[in-house]
Amino acid sequence: MGSLDELTRLLGAQHLLTGAATEPYVVDWRGRYQGEALAVARPGSTQELAEVVKWCATHKVPMIPQGGNTGLCGGATPDASGRALVISLARLNAIRHIDTDNDTMVVEAGCVLQAVQDAARSAGRLFPLSLAAEGSCTIGGNLATNAGGTQVLRYGNARELVLGLEVVTPQGDIWNGLRGLRKDNTGYDLRNLYIGSEGTLGFITAASLKLFPQPVAQCTAMVALNSIEDAVAVLAAARKGFAAALTGFELIAANCLQGVVRVYPDQRIPFAGASAWAPWFALLELSDSESEEHARERFKTVIGQCLEAGLILDAVIAENVAQSRALWHLRESIPLAEKAFGKSVKHDISVPASRMAEFVETTNAALQQQFPGVEHVIFGHLGDGNLHYNVAPGTAFTEEALLARQADIHGLVHDRVHAYQGSISAEHGVGQLKRDYLPRYKDPVELALMRRIKAALDPDGLMNPGKVL
Amino acid sequence: MGSLDELTRLLGAQHLLTGAATEPYVVDWRGRYQGEALAVARPGSTQELAEVVKWCATHKVPMIPQGGNTGLCGGATPDASGRALVISLARLNAIRHIDTDNDTMVVEAGCVLQAVQDAARSAGRLFPLSLAAEGSCTIGGNLATNAGGTQVLRYGNARELVLGLEVVTPQGDIWNGLRGLRKDNTGYDLRNLYIGSEGTLGFITAASLKLFPQPVAQCTAMVALNSIEDAVAVLAAARKGFAAALTGFELIAANCLQGVVRVYPDQRIPFAGASAWAPWFALLELSDSESEEHARERFKTVIGQCLEAGLILDAVIAENVAQSRALWHLRESIPLAEKAFGKSVKHDISVPASRMAEFVETTNAALQQQFPGVEHVIFGHLGDGNLHYNVAPGTAFTEEALLARQADIHGLVHDRVHAYQGSISAEHGVGQLKRDYLPRYKDPVELALMRRIKAALDPDGLMNPGKVL
Repeated sequence: MGSLDELTRLLGAQHLLTGAATEPYVVDWRGRYQGEALAVARPGSTQELAEVVKWCATHKVPMIPQGGNTGLCGGATPDASGRALVISLARLNAIRHIDTDNDTMVVEAGCVLQAVQDAARSAGRLFPLSLAAEGSCTIGGNLATNAGGTQVLRYGNARELVLGLEVVTPQGDIWNGLRGLRKDNTGYDLRNLYIGSEGTLGFITAASLKLFPQPVAQCTAMVALNSIEDAVAVLAAARKGFAAALTGFELIAANCLQGVVRVYPDQRIPFAGASAWAPWFALLELSDSESEEHARERFKTVIGQCLEAGLILDAVIAENVAQSRALWHLRESIPLAEKAFGKSVKHDISVPASRMAEFVETTNAALQQQFPGVEHVIFGHLGDGNLHYNVAPGTAFTEEALLARQADIHGLVHDRVHAYQGSISAEHGVGQLKRDYLPRYKDPVELALMRRIKAALDPDGLMNPGKVL
Repeated sequence: MGSLDELTRLLGAQHLLTGAATEPYVVDWRGRYQGEALAVARPGSTQELAEVVKWCATHKVPMIPQGGNTGLCGGATPDASGRALVISLARLNAIRHIDTDNDTMVVEAGCVLQAVQDAARSAGRLFPLSLAAEGSCTIGGNLATNAGGTQVLRYGNARELVLGLEVVTPQGDIWNGLRGLRKDNTGYDLRNLYIGSEGTLGFITAASLKLFPQPVAQCTAMVALNSIEDAVAVLAAARKGFAAALTGFELIAANCLQGVVRVYPDQRIPFAGASAWAPWFALLELSDSESEEHARERFKTVIGQCLEAGLILDAVIAENVAQSRALWHLRESIPLAEKAFGKSVKHDISVPASRMAEFVETTNAALQQQFPGVEHVIFGHLGDGNLHYNVAPGTAFTEEALLARQADIHGLVHDRVHAYQGSISAEHGVGQLKRDYLPRYKDPVELALMRRIKAALDPDGLMNPGKVL
């Protein structure tokens, strides 16, 4: 192994952290994974990062790329050996360039997502990636994990917002692929290979991102529903009636809303009478390029059709921005309000929308059979086929008793997701948390292809070892 | 080498073509590349294809995947050695499944694009990929080359329309990755690696495609413009005013329209007076989810703003479907009318929209300096930054004299595209035609990464040799 003195000389002592200073970097933010690091390097430029990587490659030191360290799967945490160098991209945080005529911006990996959104807004544009951790996660981490969030229905996952990348390979070479082109068919799509590879193939150091016009107006509605089947039918009607102006479609089980108003008494369910006790709710968001009034009129038309068709029990359409915010606030409060149910066993899954109702019904039943009395906490991005399907202690379990069965519950739910041709990680990635599930659920040919690519690009296996594969 | 008898036994004699029967398969449709084939195999299923591939892998026989054989870069044509087996996917032409609740369909690679569009339409949905060869090209070829076309502005390139793939590897293994999920973060993005790899990494045998609601109404407008700068500003206004309802934005140089009406006297330029002599025109298409009347009103608003801002000289908004078709017909007739200018030297390029005006101005000037008197024939998808930038003989050259300078003209144009951070193949791919340009214009690190991936997935180099790399 080489001497850390070389890295200290390269970066300066204040940017090569050792000992206690490494502590915030070696544990994931949920506190599930605790590792050890040889040191933490904080390079200040792509060139410096490449030098650090070359040192690691020469001395066969494993590298752990880290952005905001907000991931949910332990993808940025080193193992316990203390052999790996954590490489933080936090100092690569420049907005390099905004081109409003081309609707693109070039940002460095360490930019906090909110800073990217703000820079776009300052230029009169929208960068639509939006998720709960946006105040502390970095765009590099978002791309490494192909983050999802609340705007996927209209704008796609993180990968669909990227036109080009700058990457440092595991050998310390810099690939400048920062193209601002919407069309370029000159070779293999390396961009999408790096996006979502969770730091196992190299470092994403900068990205060329797509910008969009800001919507002139947004309007939100909430509907009360009898079933998931009806929710899927309303989704189809909304896609037909609003096309790409439909920017959100969130499904919420009744108990989630009730949990929110129990935990946050200043919030309320916006329905009266029987509708307040409907089993399901959906939140719809419409982004309009004309006016708020026009958005509301469009909502009235489509929701009116759904009411007539008997797909909806009741509906509220926000009258103004404050009401829209209040409806979104209900949805956004669910993860925080989940504590009202006790610590739950969580799943980030997707299944085809056409099979969602059957999946939920049969999986709920199977859980009740094997774990009688657990509570189902179900909400998520129905428009993307993505549910947060969580299992809470309910009346029959203590938190401890439930968590002791966690592996069995994961097994049951993931087996059923697989049977419904779904994904066991819709938007959070694999990291350490789900790595050992892949051989069970992935096509073996696909896994073999992934291993060949890993071996081809990182033959010494130094990039983020123990993650994904 | 193994005996072809084995393949004949596998496929039946009528599906293993030899001798003169191979002729239509060994020349590209423009007639630029003429090769020879050991034979042409026409497997009837993915399983049969995998058996053929295993035979090739065992006997080290190069394989040339072929769909509709409509490519423009010689990507599906064998070399002259006669050693390679052409493998036609034409018989894998089933529409396997349409799921309207999930808005997905699964189709086999040999389906003609128009058949895919028709099947979607029959199910009340839109599959938006649309291009000139749609009556004979196949979806497998569209995905192998990441085809573009006229709807990219709204719906993206072919890769953005795909959720999953079925692939036969160069070793004859079948990867079933036919997922119908909009979110799945469980590993490397192999799907996008195969899409656009032009058959050099394996065979795409089927795909899970995204479907969209059919627009309720479409409306088209044409505007007369003073400059490309103004066209870029109108594009920004249209993106702002129409958001994703803007489904087309085509730039057309005046001489292209004049060529069309000269060759097709039944067509006419829809402007009178000075506007008919404007140097540039743009065609805008709006897809509306409300009504034709609403679409026209939106056009009036945004085009009115552009007129007031002095960005537009004049505008016509189609009053009905027939007028919309007539405007599109003008645009679609340009490639056919190009013969009015004599055989031209063609370029399929993209540059950032913000640099388009400067690129055209300086490249035109450089061409006039080096090849005085050539005529510039410029049109294309400005909304995607993609131009067909063609150079015709003009007054100073015969066709022969111009074509004798073809390599020099390509060199000049491509060098300038590169200087403007553009792409020398925006939508047609690389094939044989542009392979030797890549080392000049691609980042060497990127090319090295591509070669590593090629070697990892196709270590014997049997897949479509001589293409791309």
